Amino acid sequence: MNFPPKIVESAIEEISKLPGIGKKTALRLVLHLLKQEPISTAHLTTALNELREGVKYCDTCHIISDTSDCTCRTIKRDLTTICVVTDTPDVIAIENTAQYRGLYHVLGGVISPIEGIGPGDIHIDSLIARVQNSEPKIEEVILAISPTMEGDTTAFYITKKLKDFGVRITSIARGIPMGGELEYTDEVTLGRSIMTRSDYK
Amino acid sequence: MNFPPKIVESAIEEISKLPGIGKKTALRLVLHLLKQEPISTAHLTTALNELREGVKYCDTCHIISDTSDCTCRTIKRDLTTICVVTDTPDVIAIENTAQYRGLYHVLGGVISPIEGIGPGDIHIDSLIARVQNSEPKIEEVILAISPTMEGDTTAFYITKKLKDFGVRITSIARGIPMGGELEYTDEVTLGRSIMTRSDYK
Repeated sequence: MNFPPKIVESAIEEISKLPGIGKKTALRLVLHLLKQEPISTAHLTTALNELREGVKYCDTCHIISDTSDCTCRTIKRDLTTICVVTDTPDVIAIENTAQYRGLYHVLGGVISPIEGIGPGDIHIDSLIARVQNSEPKIEEVILAISPTMEGDTTAFYITKKLKDFGVRITSIARGIPMGGELEYTDEVTLGRSIMTRSDYK
Repeated sequence: MNFPPKIVESAIEEISKLPGIGKKTALRLVLHLLKQEPISTAHLTTALNELREGVKYCDTCHIISDTSDCTCRTIKRDLTTICVVTDTPDVIAIENTAQYRGLYHVLGGVISPIEGIGPGDIHIDSLIARVQNSEPKIEEVILAISPTMEGDTTAFYITKKLKDFGVRITSIARGIPMGGELEYTDEVTLGRSIMTRSDYK
């Protein structure tokens, strides 16, 4: 018995190449698509093809965009502030807070010697060039990088590289999350939240 | 700022229509595809299109197949036994045990009054027709349906419908799973495993 048929097997194989999706989930997705109208599969594949062929990365801020020159140079935002993030989901997360009106710079990763990612593999040079050459002048660079070992290394490297350009370098606050219990917060976070305390408003 | 771009948003929307995939996972999949070579997205979409256009359901056993007449009538298997299952993953699970050499019959669901699925909505009539008309004669129908409320209702209905055809109707054993602890098995399972005890081999 030739089961499951070859076309089903190759669909399962292609789907299970996606991160976090195994063979069983892939089979479940395949059976789901087979139960839907053919047009819904067509919509999905068209959207994916258009995505892969249409998406560009902005040469300046490295954000995903549908042109190679995104609106980052012309938009009505604060053009003197750059927020440096690791990857695109961070931009979405910060945009969702509606607390930031400046520009972004997507590094595309963090420095990680274990994974063989050096400063040259992520967009640090282009950040320095932006700070050097931007018109109007960049006044502040906000580092919004996750406080992990690799993130801290990356932040330290960027700080060192930018220190001679007279730009203010800040970092997003690390401390106890809203709703968090002081008693259960780890010592490093609690210690840092005392060191970086601010005036009560 | 027009972010994320429209093509990214529509890809996220289409992916998050799949069961068990939300907007965040969809975004992660999109970013994964964007990091891969364009050819890998092309392979995925081609496999999905071929799947949706190429898959047929066998008219006899309702198994997914690449022809509308699968090998179920001509293959070198035990043609006198039919194993009745709810859906395609069950066929794969039973095939993987290598303990069964007969035919299958995929119901495509179970009777569920709450979801409005009656006996006419699943492939029960065609099972009865197979038992009535098959050549060689069907000797045994094995019910391999999950022991849930709906599954038991479906099994009971099929048993009632088939009782006049002189076919042996069996059910896969329900009992304590291999490696399971007797102490922690629920009462219904344990009670049934005592009632349906078999000679020790």
